[in-house]
Amino acid sequence: MNKINAADGPLVIAVDSSTTSSKAIIVDALGNVLALGKREIPLRTPQQGFGEHNPAHWWTSTNAAIAEAISRLKMEDRGRIEAIGMTHQRETFAPFTEDGTPLRNGILWLDIRAADQIKKYGTPEIHKLSGKPADVTPAIYKMAWVKEHEPEIWSKADKIVDVHAYLVYCLTGKWSDSVAAADSLGLFDIEKLDYDESLMEIAGVDRGQMADLYQPGEVLGYVKKEVRDAWNISKEIPVIAGLGDGQAAGIGAAAVDPEVAYLNMGTAVNAGVTSLDYQYGQVFRTLAGGVPNTYVLEILQSSGAFLTTWFRRVFGNPALQGGPDPELEALAAARTPGSGGLVTLPYWNAVQSPYWEPIARGGIVGWRGTHGPGSMYRSLLEAISMEMARSLRGMEEATGVKLQTVRAMGGGVRSKLWRQIMTDAIGLPITACKEDEISALGAGVVAMASTGVFGDTEIATAAKNMAQFTDSTEPNEENHKIYQELGAIQGRLYSDLKETNDQLHEFARRYPDAEVSNEDD
Amino acid sequence: MNKINAADGPLVIAVDSSTTSSKAIIVDALGNVLALGKREIPLRTPQQGFGEHNPAHWWTSTNAAIAEAISRLKMEDRGRIEAIGMTHQRETFAPFTEDGTPLRNGILWLDIRAADQIKKYGTPEIHKLSGKPADVTPAIYKMAWVKEHEPEIWSKADKIVDVHAYLVYCLTGKWSDSVAAADSLGLFDIEKLDYDESLMEIAGVDRGQMADLYQPGEVLGYVKKEVRDAWNISKEIPVIAGLGDGQAAGIGAAAVDPEVAYLNMGTAVNAGVTSLDYQYGQVFRTLAGGVPNTYVLEILQSSGAFLTTWFRRVFGNPALQGGPDPELEALAAARTPGSGGLVTLPYWNAVQSPYWEPIARGGIVGWRGTHGPGSMYRSLLEAISMEMARSLRGMEEATGVKLQTVRAMGGGVRSKLWRQIMTDAIGLPITACKEDEISALGAGVVAMASTGVFGDTEIATAAKNMAQFTDSTEPNEENHKIYQELGAIQGRLYSDLKETNDQLHEFARRYPDAEVSNEDD
Repeated sequence: MNKINAADGPLVIAVDSSTTSSKAIIVDALGNVLALGKREIPLRTPQQGFGEHNPAHWWTSTNAAIAEAISRLKMEDRGRIEAIGMTHQRETFAPFTEDGTPLRNGILWLDIRAADQIKKYGTPEIHKLSGKPADVTPAIYKMAWVKEHEPEIWSKADKIVDVHAYLVYCLTGKWSDSVAAADSLGLFDIEKLDYDESLMEIAGVDRGQMADLYQPGEVLGYVKKEVRDAWNISKEIPVIAGLGDGQAAGIGAAAVDPEVAYLNMGTAVNAGVTSLDYQYGQVFRTLAGGVPNTYVLEILQSSGAFLTTWFRRVFGNPALQGGPDPELEALAAARTPGSGGLVTLPYWNAVQSPYWEPIARGGIVGWRGTHGPGSMYRSLLEAISMEMARSLRGMEEATGVKLQTVRAMGGGVRSKLWRQIMTDAIGLPITACKEDEISALGAGVVAMASTGVFGDTEIATAAKNMAQFTDSTEPNEENHKIYQELGAIQGRLYSDLKETNDQLHEFARRYPDAEVSNEDD
Repeated sequence: MNKINAADGPLVIAVDSSTTSSKAIIVDALGNVLALGKREIPLRTPQQGFGEHNPAHWWTSTNAAIAEAISRLKMEDRGRIEAIGMTHQRETFAPFTEDGTPLRNGILWLDIRAADQIKKYGTPEIHKLSGKPADVTPAIYKMAWVKEHEPEIWSKADKIVDVHAYLVYCLTGKWSDSVAAADSLGLFDIEKLDYDESLMEIAGVDRGQMADLYQPGEVLGYVKKEVRDAWNISKEIPVIAGLGDGQAAGIGAAAVDPEVAYLNMGTAVNAGVTSLDYQYGQVFRTLAGGVPNTYVLEILQSSGAFLTTWFRRVFGNPALQGGPDPELEALAAARTPGSGGLVTLPYWNAVQSPYWEPIARGGIVGWRGTHGPGSMYRSLLEAISMEMARSLRGMEEATGVKLQTVRAMGGGVRSKLWRQIMTDAIGLPITACKEDEISALGAGVVAMASTGVFGDTEIATAAKNMAQFTDSTEPNEENHKIYQELGAIQGRLYSDLKETNDQLHEFARRYPDAEVSNEDD
């Protein structure tokens, strides 16, 4: 790697506009975060299962977060800012008039209103064409819902775009987007990395309503003067085509080689690898990569830390309000792997990889009177981890590339127990990323690459220069074997319980009940 | 019923020598308990899964409990005592020399050492012959274990008997037993209500080592003078052939007609009906009845309040130490039936009816993030109750007799929520028995019948005179339908999870773990 002079080298602003907030960081060429700003975005749930944002908040929160970050940067450093990069909550979209006025609330990735449209339009052919299994997340099905339920909105809409494109419009006045952002709408022929007519027809949209496409790292335009003025920035700042937050996390972890996976241990747990060719499969979905003309194969587990947080909220120490609990962790750590024969199907929050079934439910099997809360908590951690191990093996089989290491991020990495269980289950070393705002860092990498500070403008080069790590965990081979054995038992549970869970889904529709609300998704 | 003058009518001493203690009550002809004595019996567990008593404690605890009860009786009432009746922990046995010296510890019903012998000898033919499915409880398999592992003990033993027969020996000097006691050893041709040669051969015992058999209610002998003297009782007291504690509970509840079931909601939950003919089936085991020449068909659920106590111990308020928890009960009561699609296979403590599988394990299926501790606790109560409802229906199908009502006893009756769920699941009214020591009361009924105070010596007559009830619960028809539907889903779980649970059993043998000890079985 080139030796970079960080002290007076370029800085970039990197924005991550996520489901709960917009964050802006200012990063140097070594990946150090010099300043941060953040603004919440209120979630709206007009009906159960609906999830919306007022799109105006995407911009106001981003603008305020950037202004805050700049205000926290030393005055003499402000002139070093050379670019803005962006990452965003994927799949979320809204319709606008040409001048950027929203025509309805944005519909979020987590919104599950389009069950009927998924059934109607979701096919293996669409999976192959778009790289995305029929599932609740891709925007295409929710766009089809708008087409059916609010056709007047569609006919009025000049632009129907994702968060990234709307922020680019607000910053530059242009309706431009990155392929690594727009792809997540599910409207791409992903081999061509371009909108597909047949998919747009399902969504009820046309090419004129879409944003123009650019490769990640390309300059989309320059920040409007009135915006810069409010930030107290005098020089021109290019806006760099960014990428979705999942791919951005991978770039932030420098997981740019096919044998290196990134692993985000958050509310959802996901993992991905870079692929030079288009691949599609059952255990992953395929996205446009942050490195131009690459793909990211992404494993998605919607029930990740969702599960452990749920456990701590409903069974844990009330004083901790669902937060980390060292006592519970110690109790679970004292158990042997498998807790003497307890195994969990972790679909409390449905399943994406590998079954893509929104109505899936969880199960805990093997209970004896010798089990307790430590056993149950450990079983949840093991379940998420063994699932991930199985999906990663499935991905290796699909790509033919053997993974060498895993780079991990997200709150789960801070649990020593969970990280060790994940390491043992996968059977590969796991290295922890230093930066918490890893997706924002990934957007910063893309922006920094565009400055040429590393000698070329390759995003991979920038990623390897800017990613920072803390420590690594090595797998215990004996535990790895135990988890392979228990994982094989777990791997059969979904089909064994499918009929029961389908019937329980129907039962719960007719006799609904909710002891716990899930506003923290 | 005859009008009995309780104030100066006969009294009987009734003993219940159970797993944890021997209790003695003194009862009048209306079923009122005038005095009580109790002594603990220490459980010995020389190895995991073994459960033993020093047989000397059966007698010393019984003798002391009787002496205590008598000492608490008003002096002027002592002369009213006319008989002693007994009930006991079934299936438990020990070998003795002719003079009553134990040759080894007694092996208890809960001891699970004989897994290999059950596999070797347990067949459908034995089920049909003895009325008892191959399972851990019948003594025959544990006797076969002694035959194989301690043959010298068997060759030295003059007598090999149950708790009832040993107490009769200590009281009267005679090795005599009730058919309704000895039957539970599993050595009977139950249609003949007599020891069977082929079964004794499996056990490695011969007829000379067995106690002589009498019908329940018959006089077995008289209390030895030196024993009476220690009690300060001057007149002769006959010892009446009693019955096992399960059948005794039914007699104590006056469940002597085939359309009336008793239901014991204890650590294990069991239920039974009287049958005039010999029947055998998969959902029940068949026992010699307390009414001579009848049978009791008994449903056994080893995971009853065991489960709810387990939940409260491991997940509940630590200050309550597993005791009843009104807050938890309120939380569970606030849920709708089925808690929005959660269903439990309740085999934490293995399963007897209807699968008789000692290595069975539990499962909870249908989890979503909307569930919490109230949902889980309710699901456990529902699981036990829906199982019982299904087994009672299976018993009705086997006997052709439609049940009209259920008489309930045991700690679970005091849970308003559980009693209502049980009532709704079964779909029949449940009437609660007043007496806590219901098995002892049943032994008292048998003894009181022998006095002739009710005009005849029929045990059924005595039972109807002496049983006392508190209140009844009526089923909610809408909830009954819901539980039938959920029960059908639950009913398939065992087979769906069988392979997984078998594998988890093997897994747990190789990788054992126990977060919680189960000393309170």
